Amino acid sequence: MTKEQKIDAAVKALFGGISFTQEPEGLYDPLRYMIEIGGKRLRPRLCLTTYSLYKDGFTPEILEPAAGLEVFHSFTLIHDDIMDRSPLRRGVDTVWKKWNPDTAILSGDVMCIDSYSRIARGPREVMAPLMELFSRTAAQVCEGQQYDMEFESRETVSMDEYIRMIGLKTGVLIACAAKMGALIAGAPGEDCDNLYDYGFNLGLAFQIADDYLDAFGDEKVFGKPIGGDIVNSKKSWLTVHAFGKADPATKARLAEAMAAPAPTREDEAAKIASVKAVYEALGVDTDAKAAIMDYTSKALGCAVKAVDGIRFEMLRRFAQKLVGRTK
Amino acid sequence: MTKEQKIDAAVKALFGGISFTQEPEGLYDPLRYMIEIGGKRLRPRLCLTTYSLYKDGFTPEILEPAAGLEVFHSFTLIHDDIMDRSPLRRGVDTVWKKWNPDTAILSGDVMCIDSYSRIARGPREVMAPLMELFSRTAAQVCEGQQYDMEFESRETVSMDEYIRMIGLKTGVLIACAAKMGALIAGAPGEDCDNLYDYGFNLGLAFQIADDYLDAFGDEKVFGKPIGGDIVNSKKSWLTVHAFGKADPATKARLAEAMAAPAPTREDEAAKIASVKAVYEALGVDTDAKAAIMDYTSKALGCAVKAVDGIRFEMLRRFAQKLVGRTK
Repeated sequence: MTKEQKIDAAVKALFGGISFTQEPEGLYDPLRYMIEIGGKRLRPRLCLTTYSLYKDGFTPEILEPAAGLEVFHSFTLIHDDIMDRSPLRRGVDTVWKKWNPDTAILSGDVMCIDSYSRIARGPREVMAPLMELFSRTAAQVCEGQQYDMEFESRETVSMDEYIRMIGLKTGVLIACAAKMGALIAGAPGEDCDNLYDYGFNLGLAFQIADDYLDAFGDEKVFGKPIGGDIVNSKKSWLTVHAFGKADPATKARLAEAMAAPAPTREDEAAKIASVKAVYEALGVDTDAKAAIMDYTSKALGCAVKAVDGIRFEMLRRFAQKLVGRTK
Repeated sequence: MTKEQKIDAAVKALFGGISFTQEPEGLYDPLRYMIEIGGKRLRPRLCLTTYSLYKDGFTPEILEPAAGLEVFHSFTLIHDDIMDRSPLRRGVDTVWKKWNPDTAILSGDVMCIDSYSRIARGPREVMAPLMELFSRTAAQVCEGQQYDMEFESRETVSMDEYIRMIGLKTGVLIACAAKMGALIAGAPGEDCDNLYDYGFNLGLAFQIADDYLDAFGDEKVFGKPIGGDIVNSKKSWLTVHAFGKADPATKARLAEAMAAPAPTREDEAAKIASVKAVYEALGVDTDAKAAIMDYTSKALGCAVKAVDGIRFEMLRRFAQKLVGRTK
């Protein structure tokens, strides 16, 4: 078995074993639901990958914190979905929609707390830096969500502001996952920091790829309807970049297209088509691919400072699998 | 200065120094607001008290976790107030009312995370049991809130169920505070457990006292309008006990009085008077006082297993100050 296959098997076993059967059911059922609807398990996978660079085999001291990262991520999704009024997640009802907003608040809270319980099962000798890393990261994720919400009501958002926002909302948790695996494996501090930067840049590449795929992806591969951000007039890397690049007339055309309400399926398709036409005219799709490549290269530039040879190769393949979806 | 005076001064300095000035302001302002509207600071005060039984002077290793208990408690209040639709807290607007429910969700989340950051600044040598204690407690508090919400829509709640609910919602965090101080001071494990039980029983006494004062307290001393639970038809120790004790006719009379809507101030006063009349006829007020005394005695019975002499005296005075309000 390759190391990647062992990691896949470990991740599968890990989430197969998390059942959230505690009482009261009304509180814990949504946690089980969120874990069962699945996902890429990107963060635990990355955590186990960087751990594997330094140590063989998986003990609960790495598995539990790795699971904690996914549990924390799921908690943020539950609460974000309330705030964003999103009815669907991975093709099924969101927690607030399936239960109600009060349940989504409280079950989210206990899920956040559960993630801390798991992180705290890491090795005692690195508990203090582990907790510090995780708590700083967790607060930053909330800060990112706050900026994201504030941006919704703003006319313009600069690319610097947008990158800072996705860095907080998405980058730091992937960075934390990469660092955490190394930290728990007892890697040197400098490696931990370089792997953090690898994860952070990879997280930015991942988010931009997500923004790109939302407009230009293949619905079957992407796993959700194309054009969701456009239909919901949501600010993405594509819109921010387009507004930064366009001349006044094109800006006006894009603003008008983005602001159009889309009450029917046909309106939606028309809105998506008109916004994408502007993107393509401006070359935003090509620029997005370049930005994804750029952040991925930056990520690998950080990785190579930590490890080389087949260990670097693992991180390169991880990155490729994650953002290679665009090609 | 007595030890109590030193603790008072330390608590005052501690919360005077917590400012939550991080960015984005939209996220952190509600945290500052919650800390500034104050409160009894019961949990940090108890934590510093049990610490003082074993160690003199306060370092950040005890002060930060003590503050973390209050920050966590404030987080639960922010989220509870959304779920309970409460517009007022300590005489001022609740966070969801002053800002909006989305802000209350996200600011609550970051406040929960902040509490963990502070707990994690405890001494490294007890970090693992400290985190385990805190995370178990935090999850239990959510479980208590879930039961509390479920009870609202139930016809009857038994006294056992009610005590279990307040044990989770209120008891365990006060128990955690008492144990945490001792744990951080390096007290023997058995003492820590006995102090936990002291805090737990004290927490029950405190909650029943709160329920009692809501109906029978002096508005000026209690600090909030009398009869709020009755007006809102909320299940309290008094209602649960009354329904357990009453004959069928009195039960029907109480149910009718509790269910009465109270759209005007006069209706409210009439509803409070009719429910209190049933309570008094049943002797519920006297029974409540006895229950408070009973749980306080239990608490002291646990405390005396851990400490004696002037150290026990500190815990006795703490208990008396807390629940002596009823006398």
